[in-house]
Amino acid sequence: MSIEARLTELGIKLPKAAAPVASYVPVVVHGSMAYVSGQLPFVDGELVTGHLGENVTPEQGIQAARACGLMILSQLVAAGISLDQVSRVVKLGGFVSSTPDFPGQPHIINGASDLMVDVFGDAGRHARSAVGVPVLPLNAAVEVDAIFALESD
Amino acid sequence: MSIEARLTELGIKLPKAAAPVASYVPVVVHGSMAYVSGQLPFVDGELVTGHLGENVTPEQGIQAARACGLMILSQLVAAGISLDQVSRVVKLGGFVSSTPDFPGQPHIINGASDLMVDVFGDAGRHARSAVGVPVLPLNAAVEVDAIFALESD
Amino acid sequence: MSIEARLTELGIKLPKAAAPVASYVPVVVHGSMAYVSGQLPFVDGELVTGHLGENVTPEQGIQAARACGLMILSQLVAAGISLDQVSRVVKLGGFVSSTPDFPGQPHIINGASDLMVDVFGDAGRHARSAVGVPVLPLNAAVEVDAIFALESD
Repeated sequence: MSIEARLTELGIKLPKAAAPVASYVPVVVHGSMAYVSGQLPFVDGELVTGHLGENVTPEQGIQAARACGLMILSQLVAAGISLDQVSRVVKLGGFVSSTPDFPGQPHIINGASDLMVDVFGDAGRHARSAVGVPVLPLNAAVEVDAIFALESD
Repeated sequence: MSIEARLTELGIKLPKAAAPVASYVPVVVHGSMAYVSGQLPFVDGELVTGHLGENVTPEQGIQAARACGLMILSQLVAAGISLDQVSRVVKLGGFVSSTPDFPGQPHIINGASDLMVDVFGDAGRHARSAVGVPVLPLNAAVEVDAIFALESD
Repeated sequence: MSIEARLTELGIKLPKAAAPVASYVPVVVHGSMAYVSGQLPFVDGELVTGHLGENVTPEQGIQAARACGLMILSQLVAAGISLDQVSRVVKLGGFVSSTPDFPGQPHIINGASDLMVDVFGDAGRHARSAVGVPVLPLNAAVEVDAIFALESD
């Protein structure tokens, strides 16, 4: 089954790829690796903002992390990479806007990690780091960047 | 000398590889590179928790960083990679749970960096970033992720 | 035009490569990739310290990020890599020392991103993450690490 068919089966519609907030590009391909810039969480077109432990619930945080993951996929597609070319999700870097007493970053970033496994199956199982940060660009609740391995043509 | 023999000579016994806190994997190998997920510090089986600058001393922080490094090595071995296959420690990413007035992250992450040089010699000399964060998963004091280069068979 | 000539044209004089603050190395080359350790901002030989949102202005922050970028280039050169060998700036990781209410990290890290495009043109367009952190080594205002692709000889 193609990844596009699997997305449809999962009821997933990819968001419109967001323009970079600044002077960089969303995806760089070097050799068989695609590096995706840190993506912010848009749910129904609105940025999810705030801090876990303060004004963002864990459920909202998980949904935000999933939204970052969807945007990562959208950026690959917008860069001309078919999701069927992905041979492995190599690494996710998860940053969770957190008060100093919120230690639930792994649970939050699972929103993105689970998405990768839902979409790519075993090839979606990745290495990961998840950390708290005091604040993110535009006051986003979560940011996730990624490294993918691509099949050579 | 094999790395196993060097570990014995150094009096180092690797910890049991910890299960991922969430839905990802500890190690992904792509080409000649192994990406290791962010590892938390277990000393004598107990997670080292707290914040540098508040309730964790620099000495405890250094020991915690070293424990992260040991867990990174354990994860490689648990993934079926012999430490003798490591041709270079390429990069460590060090995250130190810190109050805003604690600027000693390099000194703390040296606990992991020095371990790599102790174990691998010149091949253990790596690129690195070290930053403060307000909080880490499970309130850990330190988290370290890593990229290794492996010899082709 | 060589990159050296372009630097001269831009009026850019690279700083002296700073010694690592700790037991690691500034640059590791593996295959066609160069990993550069997180660099701190020296302007006129002085480290730019403090927190955005508190005692560092956005203008100072942007200049600090540019200074990190210059130091990254200096480290490549000091490691024996000609800037003419750079085929692509692959990824920048930007860390901005921030109070929890300062959301302008992209604007700050543009200081480094714009430099890469100024120096390398289209090859300087990179993937990026930019996040806030509560504190950085030596109380630096900004830290940036980098991955470069190098031409094979």
